[in-house]
Amino acid sequence: MFNEKIKNEHLNRLSSEDFKTKEKLPVIVVLDNIRSLNNIGSVFRTADAFLIEQIILCGLCGTPPNKEIEKTALGATSTVGWSYFSSTVEAIKDLKNRNYHIVSIEQVENKTWLQNFHLNDKKIALIFGNEVYGVDQSVIDLSDEVVEIPQLGTKHSLNISVSVGIVLWEIVRTKI
Amino acid sequence: MFNEKIKNEHLNRLSSEDFKTKEKLPVIVVLDNIRSLNNIGSVFRTADAFLIEQIILCGLCGTPPNKEIEKTALGATSTVGWSYFSSTVEAIKDLKNRNYHIVSIEQVENKTWLQNFHLNDKKIALIFGNEVYGVDQSVIDLSDEVVEIPQLGTKHSLNISVSVGIVLWEIVRTKI
Repeated sequence: MFNEKIKNEHLNRLSSEDFKTKEKLPVIVVLDNIRSLNNIGSVFRTADAFLIEQIILCGLCGTPPNKEIEKTALGATSTVGWSYFSSTVEAIKDLKNRNYHIVSIEQVENKTWLQNFHLNDKKIALIFGNEVYGVDQSVIDLSDEVVEIPQLGTKHSLNISVSVGIVLWEIVRTKI
Repeated sequence: MFNEKIKNEHLNRLSSEDFKTKEKLPVIVVLDNIRSLNNIGSVFRTADAFLIEQIILCGLCGTPPNKEIEKTALGATSTVGWSYFSSTVEAIKDLKNRNYHIVSIEQVENKTWLQNFHLNDKKIALIFGNEVYGVDQSVIDLSDEVVEIPQLGTKHSLNISVSVGIVLWEIVRTKI
């Protein structure tokens, strides 16, 4: 009924060389003190798939090269650009100076529901917070907008790498 | 500028009791031979957040109760309904008998791109495949539709728990 699965070598993915020069989505993912190296690696893999401009690792985030990150990044640490700031607040200030629209992914009263979020033509930085504490209040206070993923069940939050995938997809789906 | 973060106890999440009786999205997630218990737990957590009807674990998938699954499920194994089939093909045949529209998430020629996928009023089963081998060809052959997540970078696929989050969000976003 369906054709056979497409073999990996026929998926027409970019080479690492072509990835470097390819125009990226004007989106930077900022990870605010993410503890799990597994989650960080998974974010690299998703950022590669959706051609994200850069990942900024902040605070206690581990950085490449790292065996645990690589387990889930599967090589995406060598394609996706990244930098490190010890302070998330300093990273945000730098992004504001570079005219990025700062968007924290959190649960506050005055938020935009994800399905109503529009990138328009802005360059944006998306901030995802620590697995337990979320995005730090000092970072939320510096944000231009807060976006929340609607959640209907019993748990308080989604896994961070799943959240990154969902929010990036919401942006990418309108661009293709 | 923004209100403070909403405390967990003020998020108005469902209690476990209310979850049981709440009307679910008519979506069953079928995991075809997923090796990683971490991924399985994460799928439970996402299924809880998006009020999914059920998870069907097939083949070599581990099942609750399991410490490794619980690390990422964070209790969602006691809210989200699940069952186990040793054969994914048998699980699909059972779902077809119950009039579910069978949708494999894979990369084939004759696919629907995720952004064009519409649930309409169908009851659907979404099949996600093994981390290395994807959805088995015998399962694709039994599917009514194959949906592919567009990927623009160098890697061949997304992490399975990220893929589940993205596909479920694409369905949920139109329902809220």
